[in-house]
Amino acid sequence: MPAHLIGVHAVSEALREGRKISRVVVVRGGKSAARDAVVEECRRRKVTVQFAPRDAVDRLARTRKHQGVVAVVAGSRAESLAAVLEQIDPPGLLVVLDGVQDPRNLGAIVRSAHAAGADAVVIPGRRSAGLTEAASKAAAGAAEHLPVVVVKNLNQALDMLKSGGFWLYGLDERAPQTYLEADFGGNVALVLGGEGEGLHRLTAEKCDFLIRIPVVGRIASLNVSVAAGVALFEVLRRRIANDDGKHGA
Amino acid sequence: MPAHLIGVHAVSEALREGRKISRVVVVRGGKSAARDAVVEECRRRKVTVQFAPRDAVDRLARTRKHQGVVAVVAGSRAESLAAVLEQIDPPGLLVVLDGVQDPRNLGAIVRSAHAAGADAVVIPGRRSAGLTEAASKAAAGAAEHLPVVVVKNLNQALDMLKSGGFWLYGLDERAPQTYLEADFGGNVALVLGGEGEGLHRLTAEKCDFLIRIPVVGRIASLNVSVAAGVALFEVLRRRIANDDGKHGA
Repeated sequence: MPAHLIGVHAVSEALREGRKISRVVVVRGGKSAARDAVVEECRRRKVTVQFAPRDAVDRLARTRKHQGVVAVVAGSRAESLAAVLEQIDPPGLLVVLDGVQDPRNLGAIVRSAHAAGADAVVIPGRRSAGLTEAASKAAAGAAEHLPVVVVKNLNQALDMLKSGGFWLYGLDERAPQTYLEADFGGNVALVLGGEGEGLHRLTAEKCDFLIRIPVVGRIASLNVSVAAGVALFEVLRRRIANDDGKHGA
Repeated sequence: MPAHLIGVHAVSEALREGRKISRVVVVRGGKSAARDAVVEECRRRKVTVQFAPRDAVDRLARTRKHQGVVAVVAGSRAESLAAVLEQIDPPGLLVVLDGVQDPRNLGAIVRSAHAAGADAVVIPGRRSAGLTEAASKAAAGAAEHLPVVVVKNLNQALDMLKSGGFWLYGLDERAPQTYLEADFGGNVALVLGGEGEGLHRLTAEKCDFLIRIPVVGRIASLNVSVAAGVALFEVLRRRIANDDGKHGA
């Protein structure tokens, strides 16, 4: 679960510190100067504000003492890659994005990853779309349930995943092996490149396996969010078929 | 293949008649008042114009006598559903969209459908995204290879598919059966609803099977272009596995 910040003070401070906040949820109706100030600060910093009924905010905050303001934090300390890895119930499933630029693609991938039972999506802090308003909208609520871990150095993150017992499957349209021939046993991290260029060379070299989605038509590539969806649901299909105790039936 | 209109006269006339044109390809460089008039008319009607080298236009037109202008037509007479069905080499694979509104989703679906070896995408003329510039861009060139058939009446089109030997599989998140349990033998038409509301009741009733993509997360639905991709590549996976003679190995 993404970390939440509860109350006017905590949210204002996080905004001032420039922490990555995916959205701020504010109780609809009523009057409060402090709350209005938070909304104003969000607008200035282009952080999404969502107005919701009081009981929805109560549920999100898991308390009634929220002063009408809750921030959903992405990439917070509580969501460090190490912390996420610790919480994973094997077999784990992660999506690592190596430079996806389009926030709508990022959002659609977060939505698919959550739907397919993945544990987190990992994105680099630089040269990548972040969880902006457009991304959160495309994620259709999934960003509230699935950690989106922002890492400073993607190569180090991949090393950490390997040490953590994950097999790295890089999707690369030039790979000789198809995703249908891949094993997908154990902890799986699907690694996808950006819209234009695909996987970076260094990232591809880090992967344990390079796989492609076999295509029949003359246009050899898929939209990155579609490719992620196809691979994610193939992993889920195998896990359901193997009745792994986590996804069985 | 989509029908092409070749030459200044044919293209101008089609534009004036308001025919559905996915894009007009114009030779780059050189001067021609007639060609400029076509470009101007395209801009006025918000039809995509793409400038290309002369040899690329020669290949597209399959002739050199194109006066520098070729229009790629979507939903033309040559692409009637009946004509498309006649040309299909079984097992056929179609995608029918019941009210997809977002041109980027339509484009991504056309791209995936082509990649998965589908024969055509069928869309209704009303209450649906058309092959606009945004859709063509998202299709990443696939709209040039895959017919996008625009039908007046979707229910009649579904009846025609059934008479033509197609099994209609409607994707519906409330369906009891999952797509993994579906047979997908023979000619398959995947029927998907729009972004918000899913399949219309009448459309769902016409389908031979309703299937859902099983999801693990709390957000029960996928982006429609991801759902289409997952289903399309599952059909392709089965066909490759069964070595149907068309897609085998």
